[in-house]
Amino acid sequence: MKQYKAYFIDLDGTVYRGKDHIPEAKAFIESLKAKGIPHLFVTNNSSRTQKKTVEKLKEHGIEAKEEQVLTPSIAAANYINQQQKNADVFMIGEEGVKDALENKGITITDYEPDYVVVGIDRHNSYQKIKEACLMIQNGAQFVATNPDIRVPTEEGFVPGNGAYVNLIKQVTQKEPIILGKPERLMIDVALNEIGVKPEEAVMVGDNYNTDIRAGINAGLDTLHVQTGVTSKEDLKEVDIQPTYTVETLAEWEV
Amino acid sequence: MKQYKAYFIDLDGTVYRGKDHIPEAKAFIESLKAKGIPHLFVTNNSSRTQKKTVEKLKEHGIEAKEEQVLTPSIAAANYINQQQKNADVFMIGEEGVKDALENKGITITDYEPDYVVVGIDRHNSYQKIKEACLMIQNGAQFVATNPDIRVPTEEGFVPGNGAYVNLIKQVTQKEPIILGKPERLMIDVALNEIGVKPEEAVMVGDNYNTDIRAGINAGLDTLHVQTGVTSKEDLKEVDIQPTYTVETLAEWEV
Repeated sequence: MKQYKAYFIDLDGTVYRGKDHIPEAKAFIESLKAKGIPHLFVTNNSSRTQKKTVEKLKEHGIEAKEEQVLTPSIAAANYINQQQKNADVFMIGEEGVKDALENKGITITDYEPDYVVVGIDRHNSYQKIKEACLMIQNGAQFVATNPDIRVPTEEGFVPGNGAYVNLIKQVTQKEPIILGKPERLMIDVALNEIGVKPEEAVMVGDNYNTDIRAGINAGLDTLHVQTGVTSKEDLKEVDIQPTYTVETLAEWEV
Repeated sequence: MKQYKAYFIDLDGTVYRGKDHIPEAKAFIESLKAKGIPHLFVTNNSSRTQKKTVEKLKEHGIEAKEEQVLTPSIAAANYINQQQKNADVFMIGEEGVKDALENKGITITDYEPDYVVVGIDRHNSYQKIKEACLMIQNGAQFVATNPDIRVPTEEGFVPGNGAYVNLIKQVTQKEPIILGKPERLMIDVALNEIGVKPEEAVMVGDNYNTDIRAGINAGLDTLHVQTGVTSKEDLKEVDIQPTYTVETLAEWEV
């Protein structure tokens, strides 16, 4: 196995499974720490802040620093900050989006924004979605945190951010910039953060359609773990195989 | 020109244009009345009740009875009533949907419905859309009033009912029954209402993609009028031509 200089690691299905621990993942992360190998947790969850994500990891016995957590909200704030200093942003989203924008000193506004950022907002309304549509038609850049259309819950699938992103896309006939997996932009932010090249890093995750495809799209090697969404069987259906697939992260030597 | 036994007439763009009168349309409808030819106003607007539509027509100097107004909400209530007596329905929608369901004696509920009816609701929320998604996954039939994705307003395009119908479709991976134009179901209801065969009726409208296609889908002759969305020029792009196209309804002899 190749020695990687950086690991980008998905959360749900990879490091934990909802409230359930994945002991092999905990051990894997402890090995990374022991060897001093930089690693970031790269999630498509836009609603949770870095702080809350660190707390969630702690519940699973994993110690991490806030700056080790990369969300599509953080990536969106970074992206906007790189494109335009002092941008005005209209946001649809929860705490995670608000926190990320404010930490970059971005002004959140309801009036003539430069950007419209769309993240999951479980209190959104027709009026708010309509406002976003009109602002985008008036020239604001359309930025989406993540494209997940349907989110599995105990009750069934509920609308994910991608469902609303597609709605706004259909109404405005504008294509969004999408930060989250499987797009490469969040991975590019991760590479930049650690200061490594794509060939020096590996993307670790359970979901072929998000984690592994994001790694492939950004030119990284990929490590698929069979503890979540995509089974070994499912991989038979895909064109481009992950670089590696393991039953659990116990099989992997860092 | 063929003598038709019934006329189905679109509203906006055909009979009036927002707040603007279309005098030729008024004269056309007066001729139908004078000759005693049955006619229904067939609209894709799900939010307005029959009563409010009659008032709107009156503002344009046109007298009509409530039963001459066919909306996709009325068609949805009819459809459900035909499929199942005493159905329980969860509704997303405004006054027009509520009124149509109640007039058919259908019970509106938030709990284990037989049907979920989705019409435009300018006060909808994430929670309500989520509920609808879960109910459909639990077996409720998915019924949509109309499939219009984007609605033009003075400010720009705003989300139409079709945008939310598509959202729910993507999340639930279920196909809805759609009543409104360009689907044929509402036209079938109109034929049934008057008691004529498809070849005895003509569909009149300005919008090729809704009015004319609905007529074609239901097997009717179609009369396109160039006072609204689709121009004579636009017709060059379509495969199946309307039976007739006129600049205004003054050219048409009933």
